[in-house]
Amino acid sequence: MKTDIEIAAAAELKPINEITEMLALTDEDWEPYGHYKAKLSDGLLEKLSERPDGKIILTTSINPTPAGEGKSTVTVGLGQALNKIGKRAVIALREPSLGPTMGIKGGAAGGGYSQVVPMEDINLHFTGDIHAITTANNALSAFIDNHIHQGNELQIDPRRIVWKRVMDINDRALREVIVGLGGPVKGVPREDGFNITVASEIMAVLCLANDLNDLKKRLSRIVIGYTYSKEPVTVEQLGFEGALTLLLKDAIKPNLVQTLENTPAIIHGGPFANIAHGCNSLMATKIAAKLGEFVVTESGFGADLGAEKFLNIKTRAGGFEPDAVVIVATIRALKMHGGLDKQNLQKEDFSALEKGVANLKKHMETISQFNLPFIIALNKFPADTQKEIDFLLGWCADQGAEISLVDVFSLGGDGGIDLAEKVAAMSSVRKNDLSYTYKLTDTIEEKINKIATKIYGAKGVEYSNKARKQLSEMTALGYDRFPVCMAKTQYSLSDDPTLLGRPENFTIQVRELHPSIGAGFIVVLTGEVMTMPGLPKKPAALNMDVLDNGTIKGLF
Amino acid sequence: MKTDIEIAAAAELKPINEITEMLALTDEDWEPYGHYKAKLSDGLLEKLSERPDGKIILTTSINPTPAGEGKSTVTVGLGQALNKIGKRAVIALREPSLGPTMGIKGGAAGGGYSQVVPMEDINLHFTGDIHAITTANNALSAFIDNHIHQGNELQIDPRRIVWKRVMDINDRALREVIVGLGGPVKGVPREDGFNITVASEIMAVLCLANDLNDLKKRLSRIVIGYTYSKEPVTVEQLGFEGALTLLLKDAIKPNLVQTLENTPAIIHGGPFANIAHGCNSLMATKIAAKLGEFVVTESGFGADLGAEKFLNIKTRAGGFEPDAVVIVATIRALKMHGGLDKQNLQKEDFSALEKGVANLKKHMETISQFNLPFIIALNKFPADTQKEIDFLLGWCADQGAEISLVDVFSLGGDGGIDLAEKVAAMSSVRKNDLSYTYKLTDTIEEKINKIATKIYGAKGVEYSNKARKQLSEMTALGYDRFPVCMAKTQYSLSDDPTLLGRPENFTIQVRELHPSIGAGFIVVLTGEVMTMPGLPKKPAALNMDVLDNGTIKGLF
Repeated sequence: MKTDIEIAAAAELKPINEITEMLALTDEDWEPYGHYKAKLSDGLLEKLSERPDGKIILTTSINPTPAGEGKSTVTVGLGQALNKIGKRAVIALREPSLGPTMGIKGGAAGGGYSQVVPMEDINLHFTGDIHAITTANNALSAFIDNHIHQGNELQIDPRRIVWKRVMDINDRALREVIVGLGGPVKGVPREDGFNITVASEIMAVLCLANDLNDLKKRLSRIVIGYTYSKEPVTVEQLGFEGALTLLLKDAIKPNLVQTLENTPAIIHGGPFANIAHGCNSLMATKIAAKLGEFVVTESGFGADLGAEKFLNIKTRAGGFEPDAVVIVATIRALKMHGGLDKQNLQKEDFSALEKGVANLKKHMETISQFNLPFIIALNKFPADTQKEIDFLLGWCADQGAEISLVDVFSLGGDGGIDLAEKVAAMSSVRKNDLSYTYKLTDTIEEKINKIATKIYGAKGVEYSNKARKQLSEMTALGYDRFPVCMAKTQYSLSDDPTLLGRPENFTIQVRELHPSIGAGFIVVLTGEVMTMPGLPKKPAALNMDVLDNGTIKGLF
Repeated sequence: MKTDIEIAAAAELKPINEITEMLALTDEDWEPYGHYKAKLSDGLLEKLSERPDGKIILTTSINPTPAGEGKSTVTVGLGQALNKIGKRAVIALREPSLGPTMGIKGGAAGGGYSQVVPMEDINLHFTGDIHAITTANNALSAFIDNHIHQGNELQIDPRRIVWKRVMDINDRALREVIVGLGGPVKGVPREDGFNITVASEIMAVLCLANDLNDLKKRLSRIVIGYTYSKEPVTVEQLGFEGALTLLLKDAIKPNLVQTLENTPAIIHGGPFANIAHGCNSLMATKIAAKLGEFVVTESGFGADLGAEKFLNIKTRAGGFEPDAVVIVATIRALKMHGGLDKQNLQKEDFSALEKGVANLKKHMETISQFNLPFIIALNKFPADTQKEIDFLLGWCADQGAEISLVDVFSLGGDGGIDLAEKVAAMSSVRKNDLSYTYKLTDTIEEKINKIATKIYGAKGVEYSNKARKQLSEMTALGYDRFPVCMAKTQYSLSDDPTLLGRPENFTIQVRELHPSIGAGFIVVLTGEVMTMPGLPKKPAALNMDVLDNGTIKGLF
């Protein structure tokens, strides 16, 4: 089989105006960015407000493993398959960050015959949204340091600045830095650090904003740090919400591209799924719902992190709910959850598979708790044996759960027809009775406890002294009205990445809280969460090149 | 009169496809970026290679003063005026950096009725070129730190890394930083610093590259630092020239926009005019010359810095020469060169004006040394009195120099008809006998000495001990074959910014040399040159905003 980049290069893309025509968009609804990308206009959502919403299909997965689950591939493939069976589908996805692209072989544009294209643009600078976020984030840092340097009228305590700089690059050397060295003309020395841009609160803000005005409001209330008397300091107090909004005026417009089978795809925003909520922008999802009979959209990592946040955070901010959930699983990954090593995945192994399904089972229970219908998408890999597949089909039948075997990687939409038909049937009746994990009026502690016990299956939660202190501080500041955003390892239901399958009798250790008041949630840090990745010894960038004739090497 | 932003907002822009039609470009020659911007394709220059070149008109100025000279405004106005008299003109300009835009009221898109538009895009993220350069620059820094962290096979001395990180923001707190703090998993601690992106060597490389292949070659040979045994380490040794080229594959394509009068303008690249050569990209100038009967293009700062580098560096890299030079001057600025304070500029003052013309005189001599015809464009300001104007016209007549009174700020192209006619006449015969200031075979010292004495009017050059040592080191490495790029204050012909007019009997103090081997020049640092600006107490960003209806506030 061809590589992803070879398949993408051989694709027959339609000019983007043909995709906009397919969606019945008029000239003022969009702007071209090259021949195959467009930005959708500010006023589009309002213009379409009278239209009924299409069905929203959320894809999620078991806890990710190094074996790979292919959630984005299934998302793209399902969108293509829905179109094949005559349903007008639009896909909504996150934008990939350049950091991992240059660092480890990868990308977030699907795979095989279920990719979004032009993949090289999507995986490089795309339409510049992430760069605009980097710029706004770092302009705010410069404004903060300049404020202190120029007399510090607001009495910001340089030791209590929580706003970090960002870079869309994997760069461990920037995790902890000292800035402002070199004497009086070079500012005030202080400790600082860089996150990767997708971990910027501005990314989360952009992805949860309903429109430009909401964006500005959210930017205004961002807490950048505390005064010497420990009062929070906001962007509004500094006076830069207008400038930051101006820097983001184009980045807030969702981007339209297409899949290899010319299914429209809106790719917009890509917040981290640990310290942020991990979904594409609210505007992208809402516009997709106005343009398609079906929207297929994904959440980050497994259902314990991504789907939980999609459902408890994003749907609340946007005032909508999904109509069905697809849980992606693979035989390989389930075998890893059952204890098999990566190098032994090629072997048939029922005992590992039998143990590993416990992980899938927990996520099925989770989606049921939300009162949502779901289907398991078993994403086929070449080494899967028929017996293993039959085992899983039988297991699902025993559970009374729907399952569909998909091979959208090799076959494109044709490999997901069965899934598309089942999803369409399942979502034909809109129920609108989403059951949230917690109430917004719950205390911060109650919210954390409900997520830990109901979603992770923990027996309880323990707090560090620092976190206990922060719980009272944040409650005193009135921040307890916000949802919580759990930052936890994606590899395990617990906060220990080595506990695969379905761990039991564990407690969640809360280390620290961080208010993301612009985004509108309290980040709860459990275990060690890395917000600036490092590069491997041989970065993927070593193999990248662009030849004289324009041929690109080394992406994917 | 209306403000710049009001004039720009009221402009009737043509859709960019009408501008490309005007230039007889076909669909494969360009890609749209929104409705009013385009990127010109990779193959365009080669496709047009058989066409004769249009006349290249270089604009420069006296040494800049806080009074403002309006060089970009005259450049744009002259392009518009040439079109008015029936000559097909294309303008080539630099892209502005976001740093100064957010910091001090300003921008580099002309002014009044001689602006390039859409000005808000040009002054914000534009087509993302500068962000791509930031990314490539900082990816290289991450690759360097990662190389050291992962075993340092090349034995790079962390104390001798000359490659700095960059940010397109004015941020004094980043001038001197320590990175890699926090223990073994966070890299190797070392001193570093950030420049503003337009000071990145990658910006200079992009602006001097003839094509994608040349870009890759130049990136390969960038020296990032030295080994423990003081051998230079290049990008090629690290192996990342392909990845950096890939990151710049779109940024290398020149951008097409238009002026308020729909004259085509190519805006591409914006290197600093002190530590780099300060002109738009070579590709922009060359394509403009293929597309227009006339190209009007500007160089940075005054003729001592910008024109000198345009002529000694850029024309050598590109294999062309200009046909005429326009030296922009204003009564106000000449009075400041004659000793008047900024607050007294409104007053008629012949004694200051008589003294101040000495600065203009030196730049006229400089252009004559290059064997190029020139004309003075006297850029009219409201407070100029008729007597002052008459004085300057008379003075020019005495000198046998051509002069034209222009008011393109208030009148657009109509305010530059006389200048356009004179420029067209002056450049009607191509001479092709540009006389360079120095030969490439001169020693580094000889090159510096010739520039200092012939261009600045210095009596000599003094070197710090460090610079002396570097002279021998660079000569030993064979770097003496490159041109030199002087980093000197723009405010004075000397290296002391307070010496206005035409200082005499001064020496130039060379503090340090820096090899920009990718760009292909040796940077010679004289006095203090700031490569990362700071923000003022009240940054311009405080007044910026974007309203719900899309109205933009606070730019310009």
